[in-house]
Order: sequence, then structure tokens, then C-alpha cells
Amino acid sequence: MRVHDIQAYLDRFFDRVELVGDGETEIGGPAKIESATEGQVSFVANEKYIRFIGSTGASLLIVGETAPVEKYSDRLTFLKVKDPYTAFVFVLQLFSSPRVVARPGVASTAVIGKNVTLGENLSIGDFAVIGDNCVIGDNTVVGAHSVLMEGVATGRDCLLFPGVFCYDGTVIGDRVTLHSGAVIGADGFGFAPQPDGSYIKIPQMGIVELEDDVEIGANSTVDRATMGSTVVEKGTKIDNLVQIGHNCRIGQSTVIASQAGISGSVTVGAHCMIGGQAGFAGHLSLADRTHIAARAGVTKSFSERGQAIGGFPAQPLRSQFRQEALVRNLGKMRERLDALEAELKTLRGD
Amino acid sequence: MRVHDIQAYLDRFFDRVELVGDGETEIGGPAKIESATEGQVSFVANEKYIRFIGSTGASLLIVGETAPVEKYSDRLTFLKVKDPYTAFVFVLQLFSSPRVVARPGVASTAVIGKNVTLGENLSIGDFAVIGDNCVIGDNTVVGAHSVLMEGVATGRDCLLFPGVFCYDGTVIGDRVTLHSGAVIGADGFGFAPQPDGSYIKIPQMGIVELEDDVEIGANSTVDRATMGSTVVEKGTKIDNLVQIGHNCRIGQSTVIASQAGISGSVTVGAHCMIGGQAGFAGHLSLADRTHIAARAGVTKSFSERGQAIGGFPAQPLRSQFRQEALVRNLGKMRERLDALEAELKTLRGD
Amino acid sequence: MRVHDIQAYLDRFFDRVELVGDGETEIGGPAKIESATEGQVSFVANEKYIRFIGSTGASLLIVGETAPVEKYSDRLTFLKVKDPYTAFVFVLQLFSSPRVVARPGVASTAVIGKNVTLGENLSIGDFAVIGDNCVIGDNTVVGAHSVLMEGVATGRDCLLFPGVFCYDGTVIGDRVTLHSGAVIGADGFGFAPQPDGSYIKIPQMGIVELEDDVEIGANSTVDRATMGSTVVEKGTKIDNLVQIGHNCRIGQSTVIASQAGISGSVTVGAHCMIGGQAGFAGHLSLADRTHIAARAGVTKSFSERGQAIGGFPAQPLRSQFRQEALVRNLGKMRERLDALEAELKTLRGD
Repeated sequence: MRVHDIQAYLDRFFDRVELVGDGETEIGGPAKIESATEGQVSFVANEKYIRFIGSTGASLLIVGETAPVEKYSDRLTFLKVKDPYTAFVFVLQLFSSPRVVARPGVASTAVIGKNVTLGENLSIGDFAVIGDNCVIGDNTVVGAHSVLMEGVATGRDCLLFPGVFCYDGTVIGDRVTLHSGAVIGADGFGFAPQPDGSYIKIPQMGIVELEDDVEIGANSTVDRATMGSTVVEKGTKIDNLVQIGHNCRIGQSTVIASQAGISGSVTVGAHCMIGGQAGFAGHLSLADRTHIAARAGVTKSFSERGQAIGGFPAQPLRSQFRQEALVRNLGKMRERLDALEAELKTLRGD
Repeated sequence: MRVHDIQAYLDRFFDRVELVGDGETEIGGPAKIESATEGQVSFVANEKYIRFIGSTGASLLIVGETAPVEKYSDRLTFLKVKDPYTAFVFVLQLFSSPRVVARPGVASTAVIGKNVTLGENLSIGDFAVIGDNCVIGDNTVVGAHSVLMEGVATGRDCLLFPGVFCYDGTVIGDRVTLHSGAVIGADGFGFAPQPDGSYIKIPQMGIVELEDDVEIGANSTVDRATMGSTVVEKGTKIDNLVQIGHNCRIGQSTVIASQAGISGSVTVGAHCMIGGQAGFAGHLSLADRTHIAARAGVTKSFSERGQAIGGFPAQPLRSQFRQEALVRNLGKMRERLDALEAELKTLRGD
Repeated sequence: MRVHDIQAYLDRFFDRVELVGDGETEIGGPAKIESATEGQVSFVANEKYIRFIGSTGASLLIVGETAPVEKYSDRLTFLKVKDPYTAFVFVLQLFSSPRVVARPGVASTAVIGKNVTLGENLSIGDFAVIGDNCVIGDNTVVGAHSVLMEGVATGRDCLLFPGVFCYDGTVIGDRVTLHSGAVIGADGFGFAPQPDGSYIKIPQMGIVELEDDVEIGANSTVDRATMGSTVVEKGTKIDNLVQIGHNCRIGQSTVIASQAGISGSVTVGAHCMIGGQAGFAGHLSLADRTHIAARAGVTKSFSERGQAIGGFPAQPLRSQFRQEALVRNLGKMRERLDALEAELKTLRGD
């Protein structure tokens, strides 16, 4: 592929893609700027990587519109765009070979239940089990060994990697990606304590709904509601080993990093970011655009939009940082106390 | 179903179920009090939900024996019981449709090993693998894709959802529920460091025993003992993504919330509650009825029964709360120090 | 097996194995010293277990070279070695029956893709799926229900338990053990935020490489690199439910305990020990032989070799312990402040 081809491709996404250098240069693939070699394309989106421009082995760099690249243009070719990071993501997509998660069609070893509605152009892998009354949308790929229990519905263009388990009644939108080991719709954790100290199980009669463009990482779990639905809204991305409890509603375009745990009946707003290993008590709500720091322990609701929250118990980050600084300086406080006591002792004439 | 039918059903569990209103009212299903509509049953167990009685759309409410409901009885029907929460759980069970995790019988695609003892009335799903010398008790359901390695024994009335993995020798009691992705009996994490810095694996020769009425959540792991058994005692309920290390013994009717991690050789008493994301150092023991707060980091044993423990390093919650309050007020302590220093400076006549 | 046989076996690993007692004693298996019975072998590696020697029911004990055992030698037999703990591990191996994870050969229900290279003496279990262009080394065992997507290569003598999922392109060395539910090579968590608040997925084009002698626990996840490889180096052991983010490099002979989470692009040195539930921010590096305490939250790099680090934000353990002691004594600091204020009030003559 020539630089001109990449430029033409990026023209579909950006108002303006400016070429500096030789559009005929052949490009074979993408690489990181510090390890790129001849014939490769890389990018600079962050000022701290500008220092690599002089020494990179790449043949093409995607840079910002105002990047000072002219002095390198005899040796390197550049494409200038408004958002070089996103442009490079498109270049990655351009070079990524199509992934075969399952072959086109329904594998002969797959088991399809009764009254199943299969869309067009499906790929259903070996040993997949599609329960009775399921609906699978067009172009959806169900990897080997994935199990959809009774009455699961997926939209179109979904990608279920091998070994995904969806409990009965799960509803999945379009373009949803589920990674291996994800368990969608297992029973919420609800037991009623009895006078003798034992527990009886509270039936978990609800379902899980994953809206369009959701992605859920490997070995993550989203529990079904007791009644009604646990909902992950449109465009939300969830990393590996995350727990979403029953009756939660996670707002749209929210991002949840690995090993975070959200207790039951929590409502998270839209466009939130939740750091890794963060945890939530149950029955809380977070306003839109809240940022929860990694490892925060959220014990109450935060209703003001756009706050950054951290620590345990979690509080606005400014307070948290102030408190951490005070703790770090406790040794000095103790020295000041010692000095005051000594001085008073002198004043007393002891 | 009429209110009279629900009353008769609850009569099986409670000494006294009092009807206030119209026993002929038709009830189609359960719902939360704030979203219930005509023909639905809900409940009030907690005083803070009493305010919803006036506005609920439900036709039937299950309430406590002393709930002041008479003024609503022209419009709504009530069943009064001692424990309305548990009564509602029974109502949920009454209305929950039986779940088909696997069809009755042994699926033609399942693989059954040699010398396997199969109970009566089993359901074994597609592609399930039952290893040599396994025993499966009556009425047990093994979901599609579940694997029992060699010599696993389950009791009767167990429910293994699709994609459960039990390593060789696992012993499972009656009425045990295992959710998708649970891994029971994987090797404990034991390696002997060698002088050259490498490790040799310590064979994990023991097994896991899950006693009657245990439930284990999706993607949780319970490791086999090095020698002997890792034991989860009768009636204990474990949420998703929980780790139970090798050689642990978890007492009966204990509840462990999501993402908690229990290191090897820990003994947890009976009737304990362990919060989400709590962690334990190895070789500890907890007395019966200990409550461990969410995210606590338990670094030593607690031998007094019935304590509430939290923080990291974990301590009795009263001390923990006092310490948290002191930390929160550190800014004020520093101001007091500043004032004292200033005053002494004045006293000194600087 | 007689004590003489065990002595002869240990002679293969140790320079000197001294017998004290009766070499003809029959030994049937290993046990913990406190629960061992006649005909069993146990060990004492730690001084605090010496007190059990007088009361153990074992017939043979493996002890250190200088252990004072002579007074017990009329009743018990001893083997003295330099490292009794490792010697006992070898004894465990001696008595452990060979585990059948899959029967020799390729199960008739397994699906083998096109252009697959199969080594000698393989065991491939029921319903295993080996994708196109995979390579499986000699003597490797692939458990039932494990899935190798396209182009996965394993070395020789590997052991994949049932239900392991390796994404396309994963490269696995010799003698690697993967436990059930491990997901190797799922997409790294990378999304580019767009001006409208939505995200576009960054293709994860790299792979995962697991070097020789790596072991990965149940339900752990190792994500593929965006470009290039996520690498777990030779001899590293990873417990259950651990997350290794994309582009990480974990050094050799490092040990990572359960539920630890390592964010993307972290470099961990060789011979490190990482405690359970520890977490890492992205793009950090740790020097060789760093010890990270359980539940530590590592927010910056530590470049000095051999440090012990803990707390959140993590710092050298000595500072962390000092800080924890100061926090524990905050109540006393406040009392001292109170006393100072009272005294000054008196001095002022209020």
C-alpha cells in the first residue's frame, strides 16, 4: 500500500489530510515509533514522542496539523491530521487482517435448538449451543463452545468469541463484542437469611440487556436482575474480570477497567470512567461523566456531574490528595508536637 | 392465580397469614412496589417503603403483621405475615417458571466415561463430559459444556450451569448450585523456590469438597488442597469471581461477596459475612459470625465470635471508624498545631 | 514403598541423604505432620513444627541435617537432607498418581483445523478445537473443551486443562501449564475517545507469548498486545483470577498471586513476587527481585533492585510501616494536642 492509499483512506474520516513528502512510498504495516523500521507507519500524538521523530526508522508518520516536521521531510513522509491518534487507529484497522473467529455458516457440530431464528450470513462455530427460541441477528459470529441458553436474542454484527456463556433471556444489541469466559446473566447474589442462620435463595427472575456497541472483556460477569433487567447501555466498554451486580444500570459510553466490581442496584451515569479494581457498595448512583480513580472504594452516591473521585471511602480527588499529603507528612507533625511539648516544658521550668 | 391461592401457599411456611381485602383478586406476577401495576403482587418489609403504599399500582401487598394498612384496604389487598421479605421470596419462587438448563436425559452429544454411576432423572446437556469413575446423584442437572474430570461425585438435586469445570476427585453434596465458569479443584498455588531462583511445582494431591446447599458464582475458583481437602461447608453461598485458596475451610452458612480473595489455609467460621473485594493473608482463622467489611484486608486471625472487622490492616470496625475520622480531621489537627506554634512564638516574644 | 526406596529417590536430587532408623519401614503415602498416621511420611522444615515430632503418628519424617531427632529414633525413622521442604515436594511427586487430563491420542470428538502440525504422543480431549495452522508440540495434553484459535503454537510437554481459551497467534513454550478458564490473548482494552463521547476500538493486532515453564491459574487473563507481544517470561507462575494487560512484559521466575491486576504496558523484572489483589497503574516498570505486598497499589516505577514495596500509593515497606504506625497512633497525637492547648490556656491565665 502506498502513502497515497492511506491518505485516501483517512480522507473518509477527516476533513483534511495533508501530505508532506513522497506519496509513492510503499507502506507494509504499522509499528510503534521507537521500534518502527523502513516501510512502516507510525504516529506522534503526544508532544513527548516528538523527540523520536529524528531517530525513528519509520517511513511514514501521522502527526498533528501543526507538528514541526518540515526539517525531517527529506527523509520521512508525513500525513498531517487533526487527531493523529484516531487516524492511526484507522490505519491499524486498515492493516489488520480479518480475524476468523468462526467459519461462515453453521458448524456441523453446533447444536441449534427449536424455534431458533437465524439471520443471514452467520458464523456459528464448533460445539456452539443455541438454545430454544433464540434469535441471532445478521452477520453475527458465535465462536466455538459459546452457549446461548433458552431465549437469548442477539442483534446484528455481534462477535462472541469462543466460550461465552449467556443465560436464558439475555438480550444483546447490535455490534456487541463478548470475549471468552464472559458470563452474561448468571443469577444475582440474593439470599434471604432465616432465623436458624441458613439462607434461602431469592429467585433471580430478571435478565441482562446489553445495548448496541457494548464490549465485555474476558471472564467478566454481568448478573441478571432479580426482577426486570440489569442494563449496560449503548457503547459502554468493560474490561476483563469485572463484576456487574444484579439490577445495575451502567450508562452509555462508560468505560470500566479490569477487576472493578459494581455491587447490586448501582446506577452509573453516561460517559463515566471507572478505574481498575475500584469497588462500589450497593444501591448507589453516579452522575454522568464521573471519573472514579483506580482502586477507589465508592461508599455513597455522587450526584454532581463531572467529578473526579478516589480513595476509600471515596471522595473528590482534591480532598483525597490533600488527605494523602497530610498522612504522608504525619512524621513532621509529630516532630512539631515533640518540639512544642519540649518548649512548654522549658517554659514551665521543669 | 388468586390471592386465596397465594395465601394457601404461604400458609405452608408461616404460622399465620392474615388476609385484608379481596381474596378473589387475580394476581399475574410479582414486581417491585414502585413499578408494580394492576394484577401484580409486591411487598413492604422495610419502613422506608411504607410511603409507597399510597401510590403503588400493585393489587396485592405482602406486609408485616402490624403494618397500618387498613386505610388502603378499599383499594388494595394485603397479606400480613411475620416476615414479609421471606414471604415475598416464596412468592417469587411460586411465579418463577421452571428453568431449562438442560433437557431431561443424557444429551446424545455428551461423553460419559467408564464406570460412571448415573442417578435417576438426570439432565446432562450437550457436550458435557463426565470422566471415568464419576457419580452423579438423582435429579442433578449438568449444563451443556460442563466438564467433570475423573472421579468427581455429585449429590442429588445439584444444578451445574453450562461451562462449569470440576477437576478430578471433587466431591459435591446435595442441592449444590455452580454457575458458569466456576472452576472447582484447580491446583493450589504452591511452588518451592530453588537456589537458582526458579521454582518447582508442589503437587496438589488433595481435592475440593463442597457440602450440601452450597452455591458458587460465575467464574469463581476454589483450589484443591495440597493434601486432604479444601472444604466449603453446608449452606455457604459464594458470589462471582471469588478466589478460595488451597487448604481453606469455609464454615457453614457463610456468605462471601464478589471478588473477595481468601489465601491458602484460611479457616473461616460459620455464619460469617465477607464483603466484596475483601482479601485475606494465608493461614488465618476467623471465629463464627465474624463480619468482614467490603475491601477489608485481613492480616491476622480474629478469634472472638461476632466481631465486625474492616480496613487494611483490618481491625474491629469501631477502631477502624475512629481511625478514619482522625484521618479525615488531620487538616484541623494541623491548624491547631499552627495556632499553638504561633501562640508560643508570641509567648517567647519573638 | 520402603524408606530405602525413598532414600534412593532423594539421592538423585541431594548430595547427602542420611538415614536414621529403620530403612525397611513400609511407607504408603505423604501427610501433614499433625494428621499423619502409621505408614505415612511427613516433614519438618520449620522450627515451629519440631514440637510435633514427639506426637506425630507418621512413620517417617524428612528433616534438616542438624535436626535433633536421635531421642525419637527408637520409634520413628528419619531422612536428613539439606532442604527438607523441597525433599518433601519430591516425595509428593513420587506418590502422586499420574493425572489423566485427556486420554492418549486425539479424541474422536475433537475438531482439528487445516494445516495443523501435531507432535508425537499427544493427548487431545473431547470437543477440543484446534484451529487452522496450529502447531502442537510432542507430549502435550490439551484438555476437553479447550480451544486454540487460528495459528496457536505450543511447545512440548505442555498441559492445558479443560476449558482453556487461546486466541489466534498465541505462542506457548515448553512445559507450560494452563488451568481451566484461563483466557490467553484476548483483546487488550484500548478504545480511542471521540469528540461525541463515544469510543472506537483500537485493533489489538499483537499476540501473547508464554515462555517455557510458565503456569497460569484458573480464570486468569493475559491480553494480547496492540502491536508486538505481551510476554510472560520463562518460569513465571501466575495464580487464579489475575489480569495481565496488553503490552506487558513479566520477567522470568516471577510469582503473581491471585486477583492481582497489572495494567497495560507494565514491565515487571525477573524474580519478583507480587502479592494477591495488588494493582498496577499502566506504563510502569519494576526492577528485578522487587517484592510487592498483597493489596499494594503501585502508581510509579521502582528501579532499585530487591526492594519491598507496599501500601497505596505504594512505597518502600519501611516507610509504609512507619506511616501506618503514625496513623494508628493518631488518637494519641490528638490527646497530646489537647493537653498542649489546655496548658497554654492555663499559661495565658484564661
